[in-house]
Amino acid sequence: MLPGGKNVHTMLEQPHPQAPVRARLSQRAAWAGGNSIINALMARTLAHPNLISLAAGFVDQESLPVEPTQRAFAAMAANPQHMRAALQYGTTIGYPPLREAIAARLLAADGVPERDAAEVSQRTIVTAGSNELLYLASDCLLDPGDIVLCAAPTYFVYLGTLANLGARAIGVASDAQGIIPEALEEHLARCQRDGELARVKAIYVTTWFDNPRGVSVSADRRAALVDIAKRWSRQGRIYVIEDAAYRELQYDGSDDPGSLWACDAEGDTVIHAGTFSKSFSPGIRIGWGVVPADLLGPILSAKGHVDFGTPNFNQHLMHEIIRSGDFDAHTAMLRDRYRAKRAAMLSAAEEHLRPICGVRWAEPGGGLYLWLELPDGLAASLDSPLFDRALSEGTFYIPGEHCYAAEGEPRHANTLRLTFGIPSCESIQRGVAALARALRTACAP
Amino acid sequence: MLPGGKNVHTMLEQPHPQAPVRARLSQRAAWAGGNSIINALMARTLAHPNLISLAAGFVDQESLPVEPTQRAFAAMAANPQHMRAALQYGTTIGYPPLREAIAARLLAADGVPERDAAEVSQRTIVTAGSNELLYLASDCLLDPGDIVLCAAPTYFVYLGTLANLGARAIGVASDAQGIIPEALEEHLARCQRDGELARVKAIYVTTWFDNPRGVSVSADRRAALVDIAKRWSRQGRIYVIEDAAYRELQYDGSDDPGSLWACDAEGDTVIHAGTFSKSFSPGIRIGWGVVPADLLGPILSAKGHVDFGTPNFNQHLMHEIIRSGDFDAHTAMLRDRYRAKRAAMLSAAEEHLRPICGVRWAEPGGGLYLWLELPDGLAASLDSPLFDRALSEGTFYIPGEHCYAAEGEPRHANTLRLTFGIPSCESIQRGVAALARALRTACAP
Repeated sequence: MLPGGKNVHTMLEQPHPQAPVRARLSQRAAWAGGNSIINALMARTLAHPNLISLAAGFVDQESLPVEPTQRAFAAMAANPQHMRAALQYGTTIGYPPLREAIAARLLAADGVPERDAAEVSQRTIVTAGSNELLYLASDCLLDPGDIVLCAAPTYFVYLGTLANLGARAIGVASDAQGIIPEALEEHLARCQRDGELARVKAIYVTTWFDNPRGVSVSADRRAALVDIAKRWSRQGRIYVIEDAAYRELQYDGSDDPGSLWACDAEGDTVIHAGTFSKSFSPGIRIGWGVVPADLLGPILSAKGHVDFGTPNFNQHLMHEIIRSGDFDAHTAMLRDRYRAKRAAMLSAAEEHLRPICGVRWAEPGGGLYLWLELPDGLAASLDSPLFDRALSEGTFYIPGEHCYAAEGEPRHANTLRLTFGIPSCESIQRGVAALARALRTACAP
Repeated sequence: MLPGGKNVHTMLEQPHPQAPVRARLSQRAAWAGGNSIINALMARTLAHPNLISLAAGFVDQESLPVEPTQRAFAAMAANPQHMRAALQYGTTIGYPPLREAIAARLLAADGVPERDAAEVSQRTIVTAGSNELLYLASDCLLDPGDIVLCAAPTYFVYLGTLANLGARAIGVASDAQGIIPEALEEHLARCQRDGELARVKAIYVTTWFDNPRGVSVSADRRAALVDIAKRWSRQGRIYVIEDAAYRELQYDGSDDPGSLWACDAEGDTVIHAGTFSKSFSPGIRIGWGVVPADLLGPILSAKGHVDFGTPNFNQHLMHEIIRSGDFDAHTAMLRDRYRAKRAAMLSAAEEHLRPICGVRWAEPGGGLYLWLELPDGLAASLDSPLFDRALSEGTFYIPGEHCYAAEGEPRHANTLRLTFGIPSCESIQRGVAALARALRTACAP
């Protein structure tokens, strides 16, 4: 305690400095800063108010679940005690009945009902979308300079998260069956030769209908990827971060080869992240992670510092939506709707893009995206003539080059991502036609 | 692309390692890990199922706003287009009408209606409680070893966040008017003498009814604290992080001397964090920050990596609750209710604790906490005989020593925090009586 009378204030007083005072950001903020593709896109598109966005990763607007949400709210409100519980704080890990439902659904979807659902639910954390789980797991694993291996191309938002942490992303060659196991091993072998194997902490894989390509990892590669992670865990565990954001959005048949998580018999390698954002509502924003036991404490501790836990109200609401059967009914309807939108995009592509020499795409079996490869040498970047031309024709897209890690497989500037998530079938048709006009101009000699 | 036939898999195959594989956590996870007072309390109290908790920072259960939430939901549901917008993704910064309402309310509460509410709303970010804002701002400002000055005692959860970032917290002497400006200057002068001024990035202040003491910063000290931060911003900006979590929970009169934020005429120094968790519902979990312009981009970028934005549904709901007048009506009711609980705790303290020689407390003008100082040398720590005795008498509390930074003002182990937030008036009465029995035993020679 200070002696009462002493006036340090006066003693040390100095004039306010005249020069502007510098903000001093953390190293992390500097790594995170300014480089967001979303911001850059917004800056480029602001001057064009009537664009058809084939870029935005939003979900279909018309099918957003108004009635299921009303029914679930009514069911909660019918029991004031339940409602009050939903309006109180919850726990950091999340609402137990929701975690149990998530765990039970995962075991059923993976065809491993013999596993202990109660034990799995104890390693299930409810998060703000799958994104928060990706952030928390990465925060707990990665020091600056640590390495994550990922597909080339991969989810650009996660590349931003890795940059924010000062981590290195290395892109691994991928084909129509997803990330190529042999290429993954080659990277690991190279890391070992270079004395960097100890820096490899994780392999990031979007198992179903990935963003940006709509490609799934084939059944036989799933076990191979987990096996590789385990075999190369020589200087410490190499985790597999499995992003299952699009699992429910499968449009052809109902075969599901099971998750990478299911291939991890020991339960010590795969971090499984899922979300109801795409399959139900991003505005309610409930995701989850099922994590190896040794990461549970660290991830919960990190989450405790970020937000104490996902809003309890939303967790109760989402649990009621699953319990009532409305979730399954909604996703069935959603699959029909997106299947039609996918058809609209593929038929527009066939009509408008097929005649343009050298433009290629593969039909996605699910998800929200179509990935285009343009003729070699034709850049789709934000600062390309093609992007400018697309804007003046009335549409825009995500340039594919943002989906490549800085290291590993080279960036392909002649790629772009289209989405059929939010635009209507008619907008898809008009947007693809506009893109085709821009492409024809850009291709013209 | 790999040559098709090459089988690197076989070439490099090695047996799975037999020794258990180590998890390798990040430095941050190691800093965050294991040391949580909440976990320690849970571990200590698990074996006692019928305890009256005077520790949990939950809010009053019976007054949780069931009807206001139902009305707001009904208003949203009456307009399916509005409902669909709420169920879609929002922006990272938050729902504009909610941000405008928050900014307008801040200007009104601070008595500075002449400020530009639209401009302020552009620097207003909606977060998962005020806690997420504290985390994001700290993440953007603090590198390991950087310094935050805070009151002694201060909010223990924020001390955990600083530990997670590897930052240093230094406790500054505080009295019944809050953090002592002269003591703050002494610490800054000492940091300068030690060549550490450049590491001081922020001063953390809970302006109203702080956790754990229930003390507010007096009116004349408010301007002084902001002035000190500006004058000492010699080697870069020293921000004031103002935590206004309990502002609405004021029980005596309605005078409000205004925020630290209002003292920052230039708008470049104070980061103002607020929340509807205490004043409305922690289950809906909406908080906010009003931040200096040069921190807006970095904080949004960090938030983009964590969660893309606070759940849009909750933001629309909260906006409707404010718009309808239900928020103001609810907080008026809540103040009456907590005033009665405070009276219950003070009268129980008067009856049971006053007779115990050397136990002291000050009447909190608001908030949820009563801070007790025990006779010198009587420890209230988790491993103290007093804590054991309290458990066997049927109650527990937060040991005050967890509320002190590792540096600066020494920890006072003879302190503890009681809450009148969640227990009923009857439980408060019984809990305090139980604590008094434990204290009498612990004081007995």
